[in-house]
Amino acid sequence: MQRAAARALRGARVPSARPRSAPARGAPRGLVYGQHGEPPAVLRLKDLELAKLGDSDVHVKMLAAPINPADINMIQGTYALLSPLPAVGGNEGVGEVLEVGRHVKALEPGDWVIPASTSLGTWRTQGVFPEEALLKVPRDIPVLCAATLSVNPCTAYRMLADFETLAPGDSVIQNAANSGVGQAVIQIAKASGIKTINVVRDRPDLPKLVERLMALGADHVITEEMLRKPEMKDIFKNIPKPRLALNCVGGKSATEMLRHLQPKGTMVTYGGMAKQPVMVPVSAFIFRDVQLRGFWMTQWRKEHAQDPQVLASMMDALFQLIRRGQLSAPACTQVPLQDYRAALEAAMKPFTSSKQILLF
Amino acid sequence: MQRAAARALRGARVPSARPRSAPARGAPRGLVYGQHGEPPAVLRLKDLELAKLGDSDVHVKMLAAPINPADINMIQGTYALLSPLPAVGGNEGVGEVLEVGRHVKALEPGDWVIPASTSLGTWRTQGVFPEEALLKVPRDIPVLCAATLSVNPCTAYRMLADFETLAPGDSVIQNAANSGVGQAVIQIAKASGIKTINVVRDRPDLPKLVERLMALGADHVITEEMLRKPEMKDIFKNIPKPRLALNCVGGKSATEMLRHLQPKGTMVTYGGMAKQPVMVPVSAFIFRDVQLRGFWMTQWRKEHAQDPQVLASMMDALFQLIRRGQLSAPACTQVPLQDYRAALEAAMKPFTSSKQILLF
Repeated sequence: MQRAAARALRGARVPSARPRSAPARGAPRGLVYGQHGEPPAVLRLKDLELAKLGDSDVHVKMLAAPINPADINMIQGTYALLSPLPAVGGNEGVGEVLEVGRHVKALEPGDWVIPASTSLGTWRTQGVFPEEALLKVPRDIPVLCAATLSVNPCTAYRMLADFETLAPGDSVIQNAANSGVGQAVIQIAKASGIKTINVVRDRPDLPKLVERLMALGADHVITEEMLRKPEMKDIFKNIPKPRLALNCVGGKSATEMLRHLQPKGTMVTYGGMAKQPVMVPVSAFIFRDVQLRGFWMTQWRKEHAQDPQVLASMMDALFQLIRRGQLSAPACTQVPLQDYRAALEAAMKPFTSSKQILLF
Repeated sequence: MQRAAARALRGARVPSARPRSAPARGAPRGLVYGQHGEPPAVLRLKDLELAKLGDSDVHVKMLAAPINPADINMIQGTYALLSPLPAVGGNEGVGEVLEVGRHVKALEPGDWVIPASTSLGTWRTQGVFPEEALLKVPRDIPVLCAATLSVNPCTAYRMLADFETLAPGDSVIQNAANSGVGQAVIQIAKASGIKTINVVRDRPDLPKLVERLMALGADHVITEEMLRKPEMKDIFKNIPKPRLALNCVGGKSATEMLRHLQPKGTMVTYGGMAKQPVMVPVSAFIFRDVQLRGFWMTQWRKEHAQDPQVLASMMDALFQLIRRGQLSAPACTQVPLQDYRAALEAAMKPFTSSKQILLF
């Protein structure tokens, strides 16, 4: 049990003897939860003890780490993948290598790194991680891009690449278009000449949101209500019906998107914000031959762990897009670590349009 | 419009002059509907005039034709594919070739034939059809097998072959296991060493039905209620969880089947008897990576019309199974054509366990 917990903290332990009120200056600190619950209630900013640097380990100073919905759900205990407790929160972020073990080949001090898989525990100032838990990223991309790269843009990239063969001029429809994944989908699709139809929930500041998504490269931004209206056919005067639908919502939103999908098209579900099942008329399967699939970046990474070429090819493509200004970080609010409680509360608000990024 | 209707009757026209009460002895007759509605109300047994035998045509004397659910729905006007009116009912059956046009190569008088595609209008005593609308079947298989071969066993064969690679010992789960497709699935799977878990609706004569399906080769027969119970795990002590689920019902039945599917398994929907959508928890897509697909034999035939090898290979496999006694016709009630009204009413009753077959 203690071993499991120690593994969970990936080389960092919560020292019980050290007084919380007087941390050593510059000592490693992190947001730790010892039980599942609402993040602002169960997370504590604690001093962490660094594990001894093993031969294959890397000592990393974290620079920035976002608060993602999956991070929240993991702490609440409702996610499909939970870390042994106590655990450091956070699954994404960017850090700088301070020191490497003598068998580490691919990294050196000064390199930037992001997590290679889920559950790293990124909400901490420093950590000692095994080399294989880290991916090198170039230092010439913005720190906020690097900090938000390993989950959302990768998810968007894979969903656009792995389910339908899309050519320039083809179209994609997605709901939750304002999410981190949604914004990445808009930008990656735009860079490939693929048209996007973007569904968002109606809200008071809708025109501002529409403007923002159009500026990112969206071709059409519509509300869920509009999805049900006959005016939808006007959209399809200019662009073909989508071959691919990306569903992060479920419930009616998914059913309505499906109605606009081309025969033999695919809907990929990667989230369920409405907390309702995906409902599909039987006729869509039989007479329109649509396919329904799912995607989870965590699972993809597991299945492709032995295939570094596929991963490298995706990362290189994303770095190129970032360098060309075709893929930017989502709208962000940068928050110093000690203000984590306010950041968590902001991240958990509905209709939040700005990603909270912890700075270390 | 008249041309379309004539095409719909595939070479037969409804003669308005001939008195219905005194048909010529041996004259072609058929069950014709001039409008959509409940089949017993809109179908009429009428004399038909045979089209002149063209060079590529085949004159066929029908032997037997079943009443399938899709036939009913076509007449009701609720099916995805409707024939131009007036039309002769029926999409499946077996006939004997009486005469062939001079360019017909693959058929000769005495051959047995079944429809190569949907909408042939098989509920008639005779017809003249283009050669490409017919498939030859061997005469050494039982007439009831031949009459019920082109829809249900083909559907079962394709669904078992085209979605998951199943090896002996693997398992398949299906609902509506008592349907024509369901019974064919049980038998074809059994012949391949694939285990079947068969879901049926609870009914007064359940033990008899269970016995009948077990005799066909079913490994497990359970009710929809049992599908939700923890005792299901006992089944999976002896056989692996299914890689493939075949759904002809929709609604809760589909959702519950899905819960037992292996991760990365596929559910294929080919019917919607419950008249309810398929409902899938978002987590099944994301964390268990299940796939949902659809199947429609009519569409498959269209898409493989240029690939006679694939079709021949399937038909040969089915003929072999029939000859070896591994694939039998479904439980049938044979009805002379003039009693068609009673046959239609019996076919439309819920919990019907016997397929109505019209004899000519």
